[in-house]
Amino acid sequence: MTGNWGRWGERDERGTLNLVDETVVRAAVGTVRQGRVLSLAQPLGPDTSVPPHRRPPQRFMGRDAGDYAAGARSPDGFRFAEDTVLLGTHTGTHVDALAHTWTGDHLYNGHPASSVRSTRGAGHCGAERLGPVVTRGLLLDLVDHRGAPLEASSPVGAEELAEVCDRAGAQPGPGDAVLLRTGWWERHQGTEAYHDHEPGLSDEGARWLAERDVALVGADNYAVEVQPSPAGSTFPVHLRLLHRHGTPLVENLDLAELAASGAVTFLFVAAPLPLRGSTASPLNPVTVL
Amino acid sequence: MTGNWGRWGERDERGTLNLVDETVVRAAVGTVRQGRVLSLAQPLGPDTSVPPHRRPPQRFMGRDAGDYAAGARSPDGFRFAEDTVLLGTHTGTHVDALAHTWTGDHLYNGHPASSVRSTRGAGHCGAERLGPVVTRGLLLDLVDHRGAPLEASSPVGAEELAEVCDRAGAQPGPGDAVLLRTGWWERHQGTEAYHDHEPGLSDEGARWLAERDVALVGADNYAVEVQPSPAGSTFPVHLRLLHRHGTPLVENLDLAELAASGAVTFLFVAAPLPLRGSTASPLNPVTVL
Amino acid sequence: MTGNWGRWGERDERGTLNLVDETVVRAAVGTVRQGRVLSLAQPLGPDTSVPPHRRPPQRFMGRDAGDYAAGARSPDGFRFAEDTVLLGTHTGTHVDALAHTWTGDHLYNGHPASSVRSTRGAGHCGAERLGPVVTRGLLLDLVDHRGAPLEASSPVGAEELAEVCDRAGAQPGPGDAVLLRTGWWERHQGTEAYHDHEPGLSDEGARWLAERDVALVGADNYAVEVQPSPAGSTFPVHLRLLHRHGTPLVENLDLAELAASGAVTFLFVAAPLPLRGSTASPLNPVTVL
Amino acid sequence: MTGNWGRWGERDERGTLNLVDETVVRAAVGTVRQGRVLSLAQPLGPDTSVPPHRRPPQRFMGRDAGDYAAGARSPDGFRFAEDTVLLGTHTGTHVDALAHTWTGDHLYNGHPASSVRSTRGAGHCGAERLGPVVTRGLLLDLVDHRGAPLEASSPVGAEELAEVCDRAGAQPGPGDAVLLRTGWWERHQGTEAYHDHEPGLSDEGARWLAERDVALVGADNYAVEVQPSPAGSTFPVHLRLLHRHGTPLVENLDLAELAASGAVTFLFVAAPLPLRGSTASPLNPVTVL
Repeated sequence: MTGNWGRWGERDERGTLNLVDETVVRAAVGTVRQGRVLSLAQPLGPDTSVPPHRRPPQRFMGRDAGDYAAGARSPDGFRFAEDTVLLGTHTGTHVDALAHTWTGDHLYNGHPASSVRSTRGAGHCGAERLGPVVTRGLLLDLVDHRGAPLEASSPVGAEELAEVCDRAGAQPGPGDAVLLRTGWWERHQGTEAYHDHEPGLSDEGARWLAERDVALVGADNYAVEVQPSPAGSTFPVHLRLLHRHGTPLVENLDLAELAASGAVTFLFVAAPLPLRGSTASPLNPVTVL
Repeated sequence: MTGNWGRWGERDERGTLNLVDETVVRAAVGTVRQGRVLSLAQPLGPDTSVPPHRRPPQRFMGRDAGDYAAGARSPDGFRFAEDTVLLGTHTGTHVDALAHTWTGDHLYNGHPASSVRSTRGAGHCGAERLGPVVTRGLLLDLVDHRGAPLEASSPVGAEELAEVCDRAGAQPGPGDAVLLRTGWWERHQGTEAYHDHEPGLSDEGARWLAERDVALVGADNYAVEVQPSPAGSTFPVHLRLLHRHGTPLVENLDLAELAASGAVTFLFVAAPLPLRGSTASPLNPVTVL
Repeated sequence: MTGNWGRWGERDERGTLNLVDETVVRAAVGTVRQGRVLSLAQPLGPDTSVPPHRRPPQRFMGRDAGDYAAGARSPDGFRFAEDTVLLGTHTGTHVDALAHTWTGDHLYNGHPASSVRSTRGAGHCGAERLGPVVTRGLLLDLVDHRGAPLEASSPVGAEELAEVCDRAGAQPGPGDAVLLRTGWWERHQGTEAYHDHEPGLSDEGARWLAERDVALVGADNYAVEVQPSPAGSTFPVHLRLLHRHGTPLVENLDLAELAASGAVTFLFVAAPLPLRGSTASPLNPVTVL
Repeated sequence: MTGNWGRWGERDERGTLNLVDETVVRAAVGTVRQGRVLSLAQPLGPDTSVPPHRRPPQRFMGRDAGDYAAGARSPDGFRFAEDTVLLGTHTGTHVDALAHTWTGDHLYNGHPASSVRSTRGAGHCGAERLGPVVTRGLLLDLVDHRGAPLEASSPVGAEELAEVCDRAGAQPGPGDAVLLRTGWWERHQGTEAYHDHEPGLSDEGARWLAERDVALVGADNYAVEVQPSPAGSTFPVHLRLLHRHGTPLVENLDLAELAASGAVTFLFVAAPLPLRGSTASPLNPVTVL
């Protein structure tokens, strides 16, 4: 098994997030110039579009202003509203935990896949293992490079990634959060087309990034990688990055505003919810320019 | 109406988060010395304790390793697991949106409370309006000040807040995220006692913070403010801060590790999920020392 | 207010189900000849089609055979599976409780509509008030009468109902469960078309049934009544039957097999779940021929 | 394998419900004298008590009277309320489908247990296979026989069942629904004690019933059988009846009113929801005296 199994000890469940050490954090913080804060999250609510095999979020109000209008008591004038959400963890902008995909009988780093069960969720490599990510972000803007949003099923390979980096004057390095802008979300947001035949990272492109020891890879599409997968493979980038290298994937980003800012490197902060046993966490990734 | 209504225009739905301008962000970033990253979130999962009128989270696996063990097909060897969570938005570590509490017929800033309905959630001041918070954090450690975790129902007032600040050599100022450590979570985590008679901020203490234009107030208890509320009032701190001043509250923090670090001021990042119409968002607040 | 308000006392929440007395039950039981049992329910599961403003059911396995295949312990060889369902109560075959629709400020029989709230559901006239229904069923087969499934938006009025009854040699009477077969489900099951422009009962037809003191009205479409509603009215049959007459409606029946049997009258049994505060109950209505 | 495997063909998924043929139905219908209808269901709602490893139902209003009080539009005066329920299928009064329990690798009748998965629920022997049950009910009133509600963990064996039958002058026979009254619900309803150490059927008692070819067994406790299970066995009655004999179990009955009526045999109707792939269905069982 090539990849990062064993690299941080046999009990490791954080993968390449281990590459973000204090030196990396300080360097990332040092990129801040303007103090401008951007969210990279897509909207999240009952209207969020999902692929056919998933269900959109639901929000249920347990108490709302209507209750008071209908006569509910307001002790000392106090009123409140609250709600409950039902949310597929791979819906909207989210980070895949390392328990999300595997092949054979083991998760990343050799943890037994059999620990991922209905009764308890992911016994290893769940979302609660990720912890907050504070590191340098690097935007690789394919739209800018090609001059147009990427076409359906268009792959992004190593050579193009290298060209984009050269042109941007910044190379991906250990601990970086690399964000790929394909333009797919900007083009198809809220439509069924978004969840079909997306452009995205090829397996060769993923290897190029893995070789550079990046900590995390994200994109403005639903699976980071090009879809459909090439014949003879199924989600090879998921297997390479999540499973072999222990590199979390952030899906369904909105990179329009970040791209418009012209920033290439920036402080990137992502704080997965410590959802015990979940295979992903909803996320509002933040950049500070 | 005293408070901040109208201060940022009649359409404002972000309240004191408006105080976090780029200057504040840069100053906050400038506090980073070590590059050490801490999560302030309590664990979140089916075992998370909740008050009697709420329900704990549920996690439902839609696909897991058991399916493959039982014979599910693995195209090209690819396997995955996914789950759905049912989560009360005021469960675990979370930030209250400004739509959470009010009195009379209006939310913060005069928005009609009648816009908060079963059918659409919070039409104004929902969690999706908050946006990411990147600012200076200030830890006010009451446990350290008193020499012991606070007793049940012990109030924290203005005078004590001032003493703690003086002793720490740091004053709350415009745009700060002020975090109060009462020790309640460390003492009662996972027990029913946690959700009863908590020590916390008094209304006078809340006014003292509001006068200093802080952006956000958080604590390591379930309601920030002392419980039960003084006779003749019901959640007065919620009304003062959320409703009148537009100051989001972060509840159910775990401040043990931050306190142990000795840090008083630090970079604080909180990125609420953009949950359209929700009255709160689960949160993994992050500090960078 | 014409209709049945006050007819069974001011506290009544069962409406025309009160008409089913022991004499009616005995007569209904007396119709059984063959001992053949039929279900009138449509399939219910994640694939159940719903109108655009509703969500399909979800089923979540909390434990299943995959867990054992993946190594879960089987004490003394014992294994089990269990699940949780998320179900809109107006999804699939169901009975509308009397709290489902109203006009003005009062539910059926003058109960305050304000008792129907987010916090507690329907304080009056909820599904738990209906109780089991055991009565004579009467099939009015419009498909047979017209010689073809009804066209979209085709109304069924009093004159046609009378003709069908005359031809069948059976008249609706006090306490009867009247079932209307439009053929809509048989024609459009599982398609989006099912939830649009259905043929069904006209308001005049509903009045004709109400005048005959029937206990319950059901149909093989999603709203019993013709859709869209005639200009100037919105769901008039719902208001007439549920609200004014206190007559529960059973929606989304499958009447194909019953019609094929040639039965006109039969023992009809419907046992709503005693769902406290719900506005409907899922149902598997049964006939015994 | 003793029991009923193969008895109704290798594809059978209904077990002893097959014993309810038209002759049985007619005989059951023939027991009706009075026309009195009783529900045997326990209340069902957010307050329903559940054992520690399960969660109580939740009801979420999607629209209610509060929305109108808060200003929602009422086209032509029409108003409605609707709700969604989250319900563990083994919560409250319910019938266990034959997919609920097994040992080894096969469900009842040799169906592969591996067909019960997170992704699709029970591929065999799910609740949708049961169909409506209309048969003769037989009440075996242990409380009446012993002169008091049964004590915790008190077993009910073959000899006592025979005595009760002799005294009642009615013997269980092919196709019967046998209902055991232990008094446990009447004594402990709504308390935690209800879900612990219940009195109930012993394995030997279950065998006695199985030998008489009953169609279904129910009781006024949460598991039909005595708990805890005797040393060296785990839920032996579940395995005997559900797994080996294909006999559905109805749990959490309320038999107080039926017992008070003095009825011994009666028409029994249970109509499980056709929940595709579920391991149980909520139920409102009905008797007609």
